[in-house]
Amino acid sequence: MNDVIQLLQSHRSIRKFTDQGIEQSVVEELIKAGQSAATSSFIQACTVIQVAKGERRDRLAELANNQAYVADAPVFLVFCADMHRHKVACEQHDAEMLSGFTEQFLTASVDVALFAQNVVVAAESLGLGICYIGALRNKIDAVADLLELPELVYPVFGLCLGYPAQDPEVKPRLPVSVVLKQEHYNEEGNSESLVGYDAHVNAYYRSRSETQKDLTWTGQIAGMLQKEARPHMLKFLKEKGFLLR
Amino acid sequence: MNDVIQLLQSHRSIRKFTDQGIEQSVVEELIKAGQSAATSSFIQACTVIQVAKGERRDRLAELANNQAYVADAPVFLVFCADMHRHKVACEQHDAEMLSGFTEQFLTASVDVALFAQNVVVAAESLGLGICYIGALRNKIDAVADLLELPELVYPVFGLCLGYPAQDPEVKPRLPVSVVLKQEHYNEEGNSESLVGYDAHVNAYYRSRSETQKDLTWTGQIAGMLQKEARPHMLKFLKEKGFLLR
Repeated sequence: MNDVIQLLQSHRSIRKFTDQGIEQSVVEELIKAGQSAATSSFIQACTVIQVAKGERRDRLAELANNQAYVADAPVFLVFCADMHRHKVACEQHDAEMLSGFTEQFLTASVDVALFAQNVVVAAESLGLGICYIGALRNKIDAVADLLELPELVYPVFGLCLGYPAQDPEVKPRLPVSVVLKQEHYNEEGNSESLVGYDAHVNAYYRSRSETQKDLTWTGQIAGMLQKEARPHMLKFLKEKGFLLR
Repeated sequence: MNDVIQLLQSHRSIRKFTDQGIEQSVVEELIKAGQSAATSSFIQACTVIQVAKGERRDRLAELANNQAYVADAPVFLVFCADMHRHKVACEQHDAEMLSGFTEQFLTASVDVALFAQNVVVAAESLGLGICYIGALRNKIDAVADLLELPELVYPVFGLCLGYPAQDPEVKPRLPVSVVLKQEHYNEEGNSESLVGYDAHVNAYYRSRSETQKDLTWTGQIAGMLQKEARPHMLKFLKEKGFLLR
């Protein structure tokens, strides 16, 4: 195992940051690393909006379930799936863009995620800590308004960046045998492996340094999935021109 | 700029591989690196199916637009978004899972992409080359049947892995000024920047070592987006239990 793999396997989200800022030239280097990720048919469908500390950032934090680290992180980026840029390119060539396909929503969203994960790896290689903010989708219409997003652009998630002021434990992941299968989908050995994994996760939650809980993985999942999952998303995305066909 | 960022910024897809195989212990190390990526609410919604060279792999290559490298790559992985595992966890706890939300489709797909990109970075750090295979979605229902995917599981993309037998140029990405915006979405300076970028991309396509073309970025995008984008996707995904609400 080399240093890069060691770095990847050491990831944990950071939610407390020191006051130390990040040079803008470093942010741009991270963005270039993000852009270097593979992109489906070269669409390059990611636009990043950097929001400085201040009123707009505070409002984003409020909209994202009042997570203080959204307001406090030295750098906050909103990763948007952007096919508006493609509409402009089509117009420039007098081409009629066929939009609204589910496939386009998927490729643009995947593009954004590949880009963001490269930004994260680059950031962590510099000793920075990160936290993805999916809660930007709690009030996604208000976030889109605040960031003045046009049709065919939507915010996929946010990202907090800064130097860590905490050192949390790495959260144990599913056994490889559950996640990697040979030749075809199968559940062989899964139920046995999950018993052991539940115990492992429970030990982690009970003993970790911050906010101890008494939870297992399957218990946590079962609790979560009995609730509706951001039921406003489909309507919002359709209004933005996605998932129409 | 450190070695990790250098590695990220040097990515290019590899479509020709040497015969050298990859040890299974290395594949598992890559999977662990993938699992270490952030996962939305700890859902860990990625299942990877590794398909050995042989009949099934040949059939996948056929279904993916007859790309020879899908059949030939030493290792081929299919990255699936998997919420079937969560249904099992719910049943185990006598909980009724509310599925079909667009939000769940999005978080599962993003989970898969973050996971895969970590696998890619880990692989490239070992000198391996990779190529994402979105064309697995060309005949996605046949791929899903071949891999015996149950409800709530779909193949997001494939990934070829192997030692490179070619050394293609890095493809130029959009100017950072087009991709990174401050405070809110805006198109300031984009049209000027895209003129220069189109020239840059054209020079790349005309001079690269393999398959020269006379294309610009906006021209390529305009050409592509006049066509339907895998119009079967929405129906397929709904049949698998996704995007129902």
